[in-house]
Amino acid sequence: MTIEAVLARIDQALPEATDRLLDLLRIPSISTDPAYQADCDRAADWLVSDLQGLGFDASKRPTPGHPMVVAHYDGPEVADTPHLLFYGHYDVQPVDPLSLWDRDPFDPQIEDTPSGKVIRGRGASDDKGQLMTFLEACRAWRAEHGRLPCRLTIFLEGEEESGSPSLIPFMQENAQELRADVALICDTGLFQSRTPSIVTMLRGLVGEEITIKAASKDLHSGMYGGLAMNPIRLLSQIIAGLHDDTGRITVPGFYDGVPELSDEMRAQWQGLAFDHARFLGDVGLSVPAGESDRTPLEMLWSRPTCEVNGIWGGYTGDGFKTVLPAEANAKISFRLVGQQDPLAIREAFRAYVTAQLPADCTAEFSEHGDSPAGQMSVENPAFEPARAALTEEWGTAAAYVGCGGSIPIAGYFKTYLDMDAMLIGFAKDDDQIHSPNEKYDLQSFHKGIRSWARVLDRLTTEKG
Amino acid sequence: MTIEAVLARIDQALPEATDRLLDLLRIPSISTDPAYQADCDRAADWLVSDLQGLGFDASKRPTPGHPMVVAHYDGPEVADTPHLLFYGHYDVQPVDPLSLWDRDPFDPQIEDTPSGKVIRGRGASDDKGQLMTFLEACRAWRAEHGRLPCRLTIFLEGEEESGSPSLIPFMQENAQELRADVALICDTGLFQSRTPSIVTMLRGLVGEEITIKAASKDLHSGMYGGLAMNPIRLLSQIIAGLHDDTGRITVPGFYDGVPELSDEMRAQWQGLAFDHARFLGDVGLSVPAGESDRTPLEMLWSRPTCEVNGIWGGYTGDGFKTVLPAEANAKISFRLVGQQDPLAIREAFRAYVTAQLPADCTAEFSEHGDSPAGQMSVENPAFEPARAALTEEWGTAAAYVGCGGSIPIAGYFKTYLDMDAMLIGFAKDDDQIHSPNEKYDLQSFHKGIRSWARVLDRLTTEKG
Repeated sequence: MTIEAVLARIDQALPEATDRLLDLLRIPSISTDPAYQADCDRAADWLVSDLQGLGFDASKRPTPGHPMVVAHYDGPEVADTPHLLFYGHYDVQPVDPLSLWDRDPFDPQIEDTPSGKVIRGRGASDDKGQLMTFLEACRAWRAEHGRLPCRLTIFLEGEEESGSPSLIPFMQENAQELRADVALICDTGLFQSRTPSIVTMLRGLVGEEITIKAASKDLHSGMYGGLAMNPIRLLSQIIAGLHDDTGRITVPGFYDGVPELSDEMRAQWQGLAFDHARFLGDVGLSVPAGESDRTPLEMLWSRPTCEVNGIWGGYTGDGFKTVLPAEANAKISFRLVGQQDPLAIREAFRAYVTAQLPADCTAEFSEHGDSPAGQMSVENPAFEPARAALTEEWGTAAAYVGCGGSIPIAGYFKTYLDMDAMLIGFAKDDDQIHSPNEKYDLQSFHKGIRSWARVLDRLTTEKG
Repeated sequence: MTIEAVLARIDQALPEATDRLLDLLRIPSISTDPAYQADCDRAADWLVSDLQGLGFDASKRPTPGHPMVVAHYDGPEVADTPHLLFYGHYDVQPVDPLSLWDRDPFDPQIEDTPSGKVIRGRGASDDKGQLMTFLEACRAWRAEHGRLPCRLTIFLEGEEESGSPSLIPFMQENAQELRADVALICDTGLFQSRTPSIVTMLRGLVGEEITIKAASKDLHSGMYGGLAMNPIRLLSQIIAGLHDDTGRITVPGFYDGVPELSDEMRAQWQGLAFDHARFLGDVGLSVPAGESDRTPLEMLWSRPTCEVNGIWGGYTGDGFKTVLPAEANAKISFRLVGQQDPLAIREAFRAYVTAQLPADCTAEFSEHGDSPAGQMSVENPAFEPARAALTEEWGTAAAYVGCGGSIPIAGYFKTYLDMDAMLIGFAKDDDQIHSPNEKYDLQSFHKGIRSWARVLDRLTTEKG
């Protein structure tokens, strides 16, 4: 069996694969902060070079923001072998608060922990470690066979952590070039850190930034306090009113297009035996904080949310300043499900805020991306072989699951390229993505590479 | 009349006096920010040197924080001439947001404006310009008479803008040295920018910083959103609940010790014909935002407040980060009146917050100063002569007024030194103290110096 030979090569070459990942992790490709623009560019160059070494026709493609990396491998002339597209992103989240990191987030290293070896550094899990699992699988396959098993397109983005502003235009302009039989996306995790899974339900996202303005300038709270409007107070009132006592979101029309979970799906999710007490306990919490009449998995996968991701106003430095600020700001996001319309939600939120503004106050809004929720069709012939490959590698039945996060790319592949997508990833719940001390288990990396080799094998063997 | 000669000297020497003030304003003595410690020290040195030049026995006196400046002038041996203490502060507020300044806040200059010349720079009005009015009055008096008119103590603080942590211990340790017949404090303004006044009612202040903690670390809002508690939401709920719909503060017991305004004082305040529409209009507002059943002057002078002076949590940089933060923070202050007990208010606030904490959330508190409200006794024989001097200089009847701000020093003089205090100042409502583009009218500076010369004359002539 040829796959065994590929897997053996993967096991043998793991140290070199890890070194390559550490090299990529040293590039601080924070896409949301303009200060790191050159670093994002450098990460793209690194990947182009690596893909060229794997026999791909790879290039860095300019956008108004950070570049895309696109690479093609024509593959063997075998009838019915599928054309696969692999997607990942090379940009990473900001690292603040830096003081909570135990080491330089861009000086990654392998650490021994009680639960095994981990690769520590920003982007180790989200998404550099994950995208490299696929590239390393290709490398081992090529080393064993002298070629890759099918026609492959690699499509790597550098703006995933900053709302993907260039993604849709780029996909539209290059639709012919990017279209494949099915997309493989590696940006998700193992269910409860142990069950391999394919995500078939993804929440959408609307990001909004709001600035409440009152006085024309900052005021002295002694001179004006009690008489002048305080915009922090108003902003707090608006935020406090966004949920009712049961945790339901109060924006009018917000729940339009939110489906009830089917009995079948509800039963399947119950079968997953989600241990929410442990999931919350791992981060110091104990009580589900969402809608009081929903199960924990519903709160995470099939119910929409409204969260404040940042708030600031007035004096926030050391000491105290008796200032009545002229403005207060918040970054607010909504996770969407089902057929909720991102643009309608944005409009409803703005109308909701505007309706609450008293005299003398104004609100300014700016948008930070929007994407609808995603629903994958498991009818595509790639799903079952992929699930079987995952089951084989991990020794436990792979599952179709939901995902609380927003991976808009899956929906875009359907909308703009009419292509189904399989979301397969190997992150664990304690990877601390988007947080200080992000890590990726060496096991995730190793078995992730092996998983992709098995998926490639199943998809090309069974079709060919 | 000797006072005319002193006044003529003041008029003549105004350019030199202004240059001295600009020199002092160039020192960025921001007391609340440890980065400016050396600058605070330098400002104290500058004043010691200037006071020595005026014939004072002046010295910089160490404290655990920024130094005090204390200077003594023995004065002539004239029976019944009062011993006066003058208080001011040499520290200034932070300057952020720096982007809203039209110039470097510590590169002051004289600007021509449609309403006359102004001295522009941080501290021009609060309080360096004001404290220099007294020193310049002394300089002119000495130049004319070869000596000062009475025994004088100068007491300048460097921590007024950061809660005065060293003030009470210093006053207690040096009570004998600091006690005088009456204190003169120059840190207030003209009523409605035109009526000279002596403040007889001051609001107290309690400063609190609160940190709400939920999860043990920052979380990804996709992975946890909907299930995990968001501390920004809780903090917003707590802040929103601090006032009811009528603007009344909801902390239990908060109004204990708040007196109703006497009919006499109410009548006097009505006589002041406060133009609140213009006062608010100057800063882009129109509607009084306090308790709905109170007049604007009550809101400012005789009613307590609760204000959020700063709020922060989550991601506040450019772009967007889908983070569920581990904590959220606010700086909150209360302005107190009458017999409200600062320590009881602090305790009541903390109990109020703690009672609202759901499972999984904690609150940490830190204090930023507290001072009771102040009520001056106009029985002291210095008040009426001082009021007459102000009436004479400004050509309009000087008034006894309230002040919305907290100038704890006035109460401390009474409590710790058993000394009445007269709060006389020349700031205008549009001085933008604590805000970008702070200024002091050259007229305030000039007539302020002349006012103090007249006050010194009245107090020493009438007593002597």
